[in-house]
Amino acid sequence: MTSYIRDANEIYLNSFAIIRSEANLDILPPDVAKVAVRLIHACGMTDIVTDLGYSETAVKSGRTALAQGVPILCDCRMVAEGVTRKRLPANNQVICTLNDPEVPELAQKLGNTRSAAALELWRPYLAGAIVAIGNAPTALFRLLEMLDAGVPRPAVILGFPVGFVGAAESKAALAADSRNVPFLTLHGRRGGSAIASAAVNALAREEEI
Amino acid sequence: MTSYIRDANEIYLNSFAIIRSEANLDILPPDVAKVAVRLIHACGMTDIVTDLGYSETAVKSGRTALAQGVPILCDCRMVAEGVTRKRLPANNQVICTLNDPEVPELAQKLGNTRSAAALELWRPYLAGAIVAIGNAPTALFRLLEMLDAGVPRPAVILGFPVGFVGAAESKAALAADSRNVPFLTLHGRRGGSAIASAAVNALAREEEI
Repeated sequence: MTSYIRDANEIYLNSFAIIRSEANLDILPPDVAKVAVRLIHACGMTDIVTDLGYSETAVKSGRTALAQGVPILCDCRMVAEGVTRKRLPANNQVICTLNDPEVPELAQKLGNTRSAAALELWRPYLAGAIVAIGNAPTALFRLLEMLDAGVPRPAVILGFPVGFVGAAESKAALAADSRNVPFLTLHGRRGGSAIASAAVNALAREEEI
Repeated sequence: MTSYIRDANEIYLNSFAIIRSEANLDILPPDVAKVAVRLIHACGMTDIVTDLGYSETAVKSGRTALAQGVPILCDCRMVAEGVTRKRLPANNQVICTLNDPEVPELAQKLGNTRSAAALELWRPYLAGAIVAIGNAPTALFRLLEMLDAGVPRPAVILGFPVGFVGAAESKAALAADSRNVPFLTLHGRRGGSAIASAAVNALAREEEI
């Protein structure tokens, strides 16, 4: 049997050290680089650095909002589960409305996916919130539509939908015009719930462990 | 605003068609190729095909076991959340013991991570089960140690830990000697909960949607 490191803190520290030695973090502003370390940690890929898209104010806006106790709105249960509760600075609420009983009917009425329809139930929470999208391109597209229609602006959009239909396009649309909302995204097909929740966890606390 | 596809079935079908047209699935046995489509769908990367490791019997063993109603043992809550309950053929139990109250003390006693210690609570369920590891290399290493010590064998190991410390090594150890347990893995640093739960979802039902 191969020997292996069994100490969680040692594993974290070694991981972050490897990431810092291998990833080209210098091309990012320092606060984005710090978040990027955690995104890389979540996916095992140092080359995501060159595909990151961000507003200069995204990290600061997200940290400030979390400290003030705003809720975290997630497009799927996996993202919600990935948020480490003990890192949250103000016991922030983590909300995922995807499985609410009204959603299938809302989806039919809107002529959209359940993931997109679930955002209707975000309306009371959107002002100043953290939005974390780690699965559905339609959720990110729908959010942009809702912003165009005048819903209150969140503090930051963490836009990490994944896949082959709409993921790259929705993230490009976000980066091209984020409707005055600071954002962080990973261009292209890559993304996913682990990266989205890692972004929340990175914003929640500056300390890495 | 960019127009986008809002029909979930159309999105699925287009996604799978793109994957089949781009990924080099011919290098895989047909039943593994079918599972690979879903793994690719979960991560947005067609090039994982060349890093897949598998036993010839893994897919058949997993499908048969699920149909017989065996439980699904997950190393983290994100994997458990990613399992689509309505795809399961026998209302199979989805078990994650990571947050059980005994686990921190077990971890201290074993001198291992909480993820590894949580496997102690899998013992009553292991025989013939589906094991889905999508986060912790230490969980996969610990499973191999437990198999060496004679715990009952699961039906299949879906080994997809991710990251920079132990992930590649634990998956290489699994593929080098899976202790007579059929397995499916993704070599290297890549992996994660979305891929692990996609593997379960792919085994749960042959139909793609």
